[in-house]
Amino acid sequence: MSVGLVVVGSIALDSVITPFGETADALGGAAVFFAMAGAVLHPVQVVGVVGSDFPEAHLEKLAARGVDLAGVERQQGESFRWKARYSYDLNSRETLETRLGVFAHFQPRIPAKFRDAKFVFLGNIDPALQLNVLDQVKQPTLVACDTMNYWIQGKRDLLLELLRHIDILMVNDSEARELSGDWNIYRAAHWILGRGPKMVVIKQGDHGALLVDPETIFKVPAYPLQDVFDPTGAGDAFAGGFMAYVARTGDVTFPNLRRAMVYGSAMGSLAVEAFGVQRLEQVTLKEVRGRVKAFRDLVHFSLDGEE
Amino acid sequence: MSVGLVVVGSIALDSVITPFGETADALGGAAVFFAMAGAVLHPVQVVGVVGSDFPEAHLEKLAARGVDLAGVERQQGESFRWKARYSYDLNSRETLETRLGVFAHFQPRIPAKFRDAKFVFLGNIDPALQLNVLDQVKQPTLVACDTMNYWIQGKRDLLLELLRHIDILMVNDSEARELSGDWNIYRAAHWILGRGPKMVVIKQGDHGALLVDPETIFKVPAYPLQDVFDPTGAGDAFAGGFMAYVARTGDVTFPNLRRAMVYGSAMGSLAVEAFGVQRLEQVTLKEVRGRVKAFRDLVHFSLDGEE
Repeated sequence: MSVGLVVVGSIALDSVITPFGETADALGGAAVFFAMAGAVLHPVQVVGVVGSDFPEAHLEKLAARGVDLAGVERQQGESFRWKARYSYDLNSRETLETRLGVFAHFQPRIPAKFRDAKFVFLGNIDPALQLNVLDQVKQPTLVACDTMNYWIQGKRDLLLELLRHIDILMVNDSEARELSGDWNIYRAAHWILGRGPKMVVIKQGDHGALLVDPETIFKVPAYPLQDVFDPTGAGDAFAGGFMAYVARTGDVTFPNLRRAMVYGSAMGSLAVEAFGVQRLEQVTLKEVRGRVKAFRDLVHFSLDGEE
Repeated sequence: MSVGLVVVGSIALDSVITPFGETADALGGAAVFFAMAGAVLHPVQVVGVVGSDFPEAHLEKLAARGVDLAGVERQQGESFRWKARYSYDLNSRETLETRLGVFAHFQPRIPAKFRDAKFVFLGNIDPALQLNVLDQVKQPTLVACDTMNYWIQGKRDLLLELLRHIDILMVNDSEARELSGDWNIYRAAHWILGRGPKMVVIKQGDHGALLVDPETIFKVPAYPLQDVFDPTGAGDAFAGGFMAYVARTGDVTFPNLRRAMVYGSAMGSLAVEAFGVQRLEQVTLKEVRGRVKAFRDLVHFSLDGEE
């Protein structure tokens, strides 16, 4: 049996408007994008909650990719719904509606069979709940964690406590800046490293991603895409690709984490090529590996004889 | 004798205000940053104009780095002066004053001994003058060219004519977008390639630079700097490093142009570590090579056995 990889986070019905079309009540949420991307590389175990209105067919899409849904509770009430509109260049978005529904009172319960998980991803939820999840898992090898401005502002102390118990904080650049109070992203990363995590991953949207540890920095630029359809979920697909690659290889050395960054970036770039999870639902391991090689061709160069 | 590398462009007195200090009438201008960076790698020949007020000591700084100033005319009148203030995060700047002085009527005259130059960089001047320079050089191996929004808007036809006669257009991302009318930077690059140049280099400021040809894309991210003092001239230092590396090696194959991109990026990253040309004035070849290796460590990763 392969080692466990658990993700805890939102399962949502997304309605997204882009210049290229729109969706209504499509399968979405951080845990979903994570799982759909990760499942290409390694089995993923999901912990989350859906309402009584959540289409069974949506969950079946995850099951079809081998995702273990034993940790998904179905509760009476409405599912989490999120509606947003992207700008013409997809670089900004406006949230039109957020209805938390049953997600408002989400209390993650890790099923007994998930508690041996060696790899844990704490999606963006209340840091109190993230800490609670850590109490439920036995002895994970690597715990990574996302958060957002809402918790940075509203639950800063708990978030700082959480940082002492995780291995990797995985946030976007504006979150890193807000958390640290420093606009220079490299100084911001080192500020975070000083609060506990061994590493920081900073997601920079269409400028790629950074992996920072106390000694080194690794940068993956964004994949050059002439057409982006829907940026929703790219960061969560990145996290899924990253964590699933680490779980697949069982290797947490720095060279392997660099590869994990590229697998994450490959998943993020694939995610945005179609609406919602459509591309991730279909993508093959071979396609992902092809994208990883394309990343190498994008950035590699050789030194000349003189150096 | 080494092959000739000529740059045509502005020589200026810069007054720059950043959150970290300010300068007044400091040595600046595109041709100066280009030459100061390039001279570390290969002799640079400058064509430009200064006014009667231009301090001889400024020109001596260039001469001290082996820059050939035979193409620098001194004319009666004021030198080109530029004054700007950067925002607190250095990501935007406001031009406070531009006084063209003798630069307003600059007519580049290429000295006879520069006309055999194999490598030519046309700094950001009127495309009519850029075309005129090309008439004066005999048979260059590689011609690269910069431009700006002012010419894209005001002299579009001449600029499009110029594109048919150059090898590399080297512009920043907003210029590429404006010229092509496409906000997607990769589509914008291909639009430009369709107008004549063999390659496009897109400078992306603190997000690095792209080299695009019809088949491939090469990306160099920006170097991670915890402290940036003055972004002025980074793009021109990039161009100087790029062209001087190509001239030094005499190799215009794609693997070598990738290395040239990294040398350019190294120079750009060094330039911003101090005010004006201060860092470039002092930097050694060894330091530049060290920075080039640091770029490799920043982006390289190995594929695993499965790929």
